[in-house]
Amino acid sequence: MSTMTLDLPGGGYPIHIGAGLLARADLLRAPVSGGRVAIITNEVVAPLYLAHLTEALAGFDPTVVVLPDGEPQKALGTIERIVGDLLGRRCDRATTIFALGGGVVGDIAGFAAAVYQRGVPFVQVPTTLLSQVDSSVGGKTGVNHALGKNMIGCFYQPQAVIIDTTTLSTLPDRELSAGLAEVIKYGAIGNLAFFEWLEQNVDALVRRDPAALAYAIETSCRDKARVVMADEREAGVRALLNFGHTFGHAIEGAMGYGRWLHGEAVGAGMVMAAHLSERLGLITAPDTRRLCDLVRRAGLPTGPPAIAPGRFLELMAVDKKAAHGRIRFVLLRALGEAFLTDEVSEDALMDVLGRMPPVSI
Amino acid sequence: MSTMTLDLPGGGYPIHIGAGLLARADLLRAPVSGGRVAIITNEVVAPLYLAHLTEALAGFDPTVVVLPDGEPQKALGTIERIVGDLLGRRCDRATTIFALGGGVVGDIAGFAAAVYQRGVPFVQVPTTLLSQVDSSVGGKTGVNHALGKNMIGCFYQPQAVIIDTTTLSTLPDRELSAGLAEVIKYGAIGNLAFFEWLEQNVDALVRRDPAALAYAIETSCRDKARVVMADEREAGVRALLNFGHTFGHAIEGAMGYGRWLHGEAVGAGMVMAAHLSERLGLITAPDTRRLCDLVRRAGLPTGPPAIAPGRFLELMAVDKKAAHGRIRFVLLRALGEAFLTDEVSEDALMDVLGRMPPVSI
Repeated sequence: MSTMTLDLPGGGYPIHIGAGLLARADLLRAPVSGGRVAIITNEVVAPLYLAHLTEALAGFDPTVVVLPDGEPQKALGTIERIVGDLLGRRCDRATTIFALGGGVVGDIAGFAAAVYQRGVPFVQVPTTLLSQVDSSVGGKTGVNHALGKNMIGCFYQPQAVIIDTTTLSTLPDRELSAGLAEVIKYGAIGNLAFFEWLEQNVDALVRRDPAALAYAIETSCRDKARVVMADEREAGVRALLNFGHTFGHAIEGAMGYGRWLHGEAVGAGMVMAAHLSERLGLITAPDTRRLCDLVRRAGLPTGPPAIAPGRFLELMAVDKKAAHGRIRFVLLRALGEAFLTDEVSEDALMDVLGRMPPVSI
Repeated sequence: MSTMTLDLPGGGYPIHIGAGLLARADLLRAPVSGGRVAIITNEVVAPLYLAHLTEALAGFDPTVVVLPDGEPQKALGTIERIVGDLLGRRCDRATTIFALGGGVVGDIAGFAAAVYQRGVPFVQVPTTLLSQVDSSVGGKTGVNHALGKNMIGCFYQPQAVIIDTTTLSTLPDRELSAGLAEVIKYGAIGNLAFFEWLEQNVDALVRRDPAALAYAIETSCRDKARVVMADEREAGVRALLNFGHTFGHAIEGAMGYGRWLHGEAVGAGMVMAAHLSERLGLITAPDTRRLCDLVRRAGLPTGPPAIAPGRFLELMAVDKKAAHGRIRFVLLRALGEAFLTDEVSEDALMDVLGRMPPVSI
């Protein structure tokens, strides 16, 4: 097991990474401060891992909420339901909420913890690669609105993140690939050495080599933690983590949330951001090709679905990363070096949107 | 005008109190950091004061959301609606939200600000006595759940609180009295000199003497700010501000939110808490009578509506001030000296509940 600490002004927390951590009752019980716990999970994860967690937390009278699977659960109606379940079980302010599942469960459970009785402690137990390398670390929580993804939420940090890499053995291939999108992102935006390691090891990751996965998760969490420590509220450098996401969120919005997985949309979005960077003379065609190849080898789409460029533009404009009405992009100055800009001409953007051959998955 | 500052680790903010402040564009514009504003108000307040605010903020392209009046608006559905309105107007993260209205509007708008795109700045412009002396100061925001009041919310501090005492001229008598409940509370829990001032001046307050009202608002805000600075997240002393509220919330819950005004329920709740304190040998019968008299002279009910004691108990048990499953009470050790306890015997409680003659309003 490896442990790193994410230090923040409001208090730090440990991120534990290792095989078989769901059997480590000591680790799972350590962050519980009050006398009770609630576990929020979904119908796919519950049959696989819920028993591990309820056993470890048996002394804390666990309240269990099992949600249906899928992105449509990321809605205020789900928060209302969770609060009702917790109140029905008389969970008070001294209840610690555990999120057991992927990014959707973590975002929902974290937001429920942030707003339940004005905030109760919570613990992330991510079971997908995407949530292990990205969404469980850093305190972004929230749900979607019909008019936009993640438009309702809070920055709310967990008490601990406990990553059991063994859970990846049950992850569908498509979701493993989706998680690799965020892994590749860390390399592309700020860690050229890791990007090059990924070029050497992406096949091992796809075939789930445990040592390769452990290294990729640790490196990703370390990079993510560093960025979050520098800029918890995304006033600056944290926005670089949205590389590929401005395009990606538009893809998810156009397809209806959940038809493309978040990581698939981000994979396509990163390739689009690379093309835009190239179009603006920032990186070379071979750089774009290296990123595109890595995304493809990770099993991800390398372009968007068929969306008319005008519609694409409209979807990006409503994204919350639009500051003062202008669309903000994370672009590459080089492989391993990203920057933030809202000075992309509509011409360049429409040119790239018009040139991307549509992909279906 | 008087100005005090509420200092907190996350940054302080000014509380301005004075007549005619809605005409002070300088004060209203000062807390706006981004280029845009949104104003959340309701259908009762809008015809009276919205024009003042839109005029002062005209340069910031205000988005206006006018809610129906009343406590039932404190629901997640209203948050969904506000977020939709803001997204529809393409309000981004640099939008400052103004809450123009009473406690319900302030709680809703503050929570909307806390969760819109993971948090945007907001400003409280309270127009009722209750919101001016209590709910606009200190950062409690949130909405109700069918199973309990204020069960969904955040601690989220405003950028400024701007209290125009002139707005009290249009406040219905019943709401003025409801505000006085919270004013009396500050005296009862920690400020005997203020309690005695209120005994001398409650009639002047009821007939809206401007000097008396200004003094009562300033003293209340100063006491509230002091408590919030000592304990922002209600880990300790801030809970004393819930004097009368454990009983009061149960009354509101039993009657359906809004049938009794919050302040009316708190007025009755304070008298009940005094009776319970007396029953436990903490204060004398004359002390209870002094509080009861003051509550009555403020135009407030001095006892609960007809609710069976068993039902009352059940409603109190779900209140979020129940820690580790036990009901927590704020009781009086003396007039002007409150303390927190979860060691009240059910006997004593049932005795007091059984003895209160039902009041109807």
